[in-house]
Amino acid sequence: MATPTGRSPELRHDPVSNRWVIFSPARAKRPSDFKSKSPENPDPNSSSGNSCPFCIGNESQCAPEIFRFPPDLGNPNWKIRVIENLFPALSRTGEYPSEDQQRHQDHTAGGRSLKGLGFHDVVIEAPVHSVQLSDLGAGEIGQVLLAYKKRIEQIATFDSIKYIQVFKNHGASAGASLSHSHSQILALPVVPPAVSTRLDGTKEYFEKTGKCSLCEVRAKELIIDESTHFISIVPFAATFAFEIWIVPKDHSSHFHELDSDQAVDLAGLLRLMLKKMSTQLNNPPFNFMIQTSPLRVEESRLPYSHWFLQIVPHLGGVAGFEIGSGCHINPVFPEDAAKVLREVNVNLSG
Amino acid sequence: MATPTGRSPELRHDPVSNRWVIFSPARAKRPSDFKSKSPENPDPNSSSGNSCPFCIGNESQCAPEIFRFPPDLGNPNWKIRVIENLFPALSRTGEYPSEDQQRHQDHTAGGRSLKGLGFHDVVIEAPVHSVQLSDLGAGEIGQVLLAYKKRIEQIATFDSIKYIQVFKNHGASAGASLSHSHSQILALPVVPPAVSTRLDGTKEYFEKTGKCSLCEVRAKELIIDESTHFISIVPFAATFAFEIWIVPKDHSSHFHELDSDQAVDLAGLLRLMLKKMSTQLNNPPFNFMIQTSPLRVEESRLPYSHWFLQIVPHLGGVAGFEIGSGCHINPVFPEDAAKVLREVNVNLSG
Repeated sequence: MATPTGRSPELRHDPVSNRWVIFSPARAKRPSDFKSKSPENPDPNSSSGNSCPFCIGNESQCAPEIFRFPPDLGNPNWKIRVIENLFPALSRTGEYPSEDQQRHQDHTAGGRSLKGLGFHDVVIEAPVHSVQLSDLGAGEIGQVLLAYKKRIEQIATFDSIKYIQVFKNHGASAGASLSHSHSQILALPVVPPAVSTRLDGTKEYFEKTGKCSLCEVRAKELIIDESTHFISIVPFAATFAFEIWIVPKDHSSHFHELDSDQAVDLAGLLRLMLKKMSTQLNNPPFNFMIQTSPLRVEESRLPYSHWFLQIVPHLGGVAGFEIGSGCHINPVFPEDAAKVLREVNVNLSG
Repeated sequence: MATPTGRSPELRHDPVSNRWVIFSPARAKRPSDFKSKSPENPDPNSSSGNSCPFCIGNESQCAPEIFRFPPDLGNPNWKIRVIENLFPALSRTGEYPSEDQQRHQDHTAGGRSLKGLGFHDVVIEAPVHSVQLSDLGAGEIGQVLLAYKKRIEQIATFDSIKYIQVFKNHGASAGASLSHSHSQILALPVVPPAVSTRLDGTKEYFEKTGKCSLCEVRAKELIIDESTHFISIVPFAATFAFEIWIVPKDHSSHFHELDSDQAVDLAGLLRLMLKKMSTQLNNPPFNFMIQTSPLRVEESRLPYSHWFLQIVPHLGGVAGFEIGSGCHINPVFPEDAAKVLREVNVNLSG
């Protein structure tokens, strides 16, 4: 029996996340009803001006700087700063005596543990408090992406680091504790589970078809936009409503293979997606994550390792069903979400 | 270098969820600062009395009833009702023509899809709007648990159903859309990813040690309380701060093996855990999930399939790092959380 919206519920399996998602139109509001109830207006309680440690002039309130752009330390007019996180989730490599660095077994219920060694850095994307990432021009956003690349290349020299997660939390309910526009880089001593699962999923598809599943994401009804080097889509089995992936058109395993031209091209498409999402969904809190490959991935895995940038607006929470089962319920079919994002016009001059 | 709390960050791997968790005391507030910022006081906007469909007397506003307790349909003084969800995530088996029921391939980027067939039911835990689950006596909560069992046994007769997820969302920010105390039962045509991962994790431990990892959770520093048949612990590599597992002491693969005596015993320990959590964490929103085994699990998997009840208070959100990597950052070491929950006295007479 069809639901009121004319669509029946459907389960979809995504070969990348290797996960089933329930698409449930009976639980959906119409896309236009999907606008965020907590748009990210400037937070009246947030720090700004003198009290925000990320604002230009307040550099001394921050943890040590790693580098800035432009790279002239003597120039106080920086555009981007990469600094240490003042409350790091992991301790910087070297803070433990080296003999403690190897994995150690613990017999408590068979659980294992490992010293929490790694890097946790912050990328301040603009010197001025009120400027959000999507307010910047494509050239400026491209410099932010190149700052990620530069920092990844620095961290990649540490053998103990297995994976580097770049992510951005925009808005308090998406996890941002400071409203000044920033992103984070967390370098881990393990390959995290979502990354292993993703590579297992793309491997399975590759073994079946001889093709990289990310090279194949070209279904017309799922495409939002494209640029010279990138395509933006809503994935076929999107975990979250209005989730967006920006995928390099040419096969590339690691984000940090990005060159300067590609960075500006990606920046333009990222900016367009953020503006479209803001327009159609009432400036929602969101996260974006760079889904790249482990640093020292085996040669044989390269043909099915393909990085992408994932954008997730926060429109609903995760509840008991999702925590318990690992299954997600998405009330918006991806082809409907893609249409909503494809057809809106946004003003890119601002 | 030790952090201000005297603990260094640590990564822990849990054999059950097969997941690494980062324990990061530098990001922790002290446990007493961890109280919920949005305690679940009665929601002024929520329905109650005449307008709540779950209240006694308003049965006609609900989707069809499946059964009630006491089981006399002529008796309007019910204590528990199991009804269909008015906004089901899945369509009830039988609403599709049978030839459509088999899995079908879709060629969009190699994604697969499956008809969304299953059951999505609601268990109304009490007739009166203001009564929360932990306000009930152990005998009454035991009847709620036995209602889950009875409904699982009914659904288990459908061959198309592979897994049944029982869960409770308490509080709007934990996903509850109605404040009247209720839980949900979602019967799925696939084994969901978290369940497969859990069984792979417990299998790996079993193959290494010859033991069931859930039978082994007896580390003194992680135990909160115990009853005749159950033990409550904070797991060694808890994904969430103050996460609690209630585990049967004797090996048991499926929740619905529970007998009436065990149900009342479990109910008492569940009630104690909910009251302790409410006292120590300022009545936070929470979820609980019954982590059981797939309905038709192979005989060979039974030795490492052990069900438990997982309780997760909502104290922080999931952000870009967690979505991207599948890794979680938990600011409270499990042994510290267990101590906080072990040492509090709560009034159980209420």
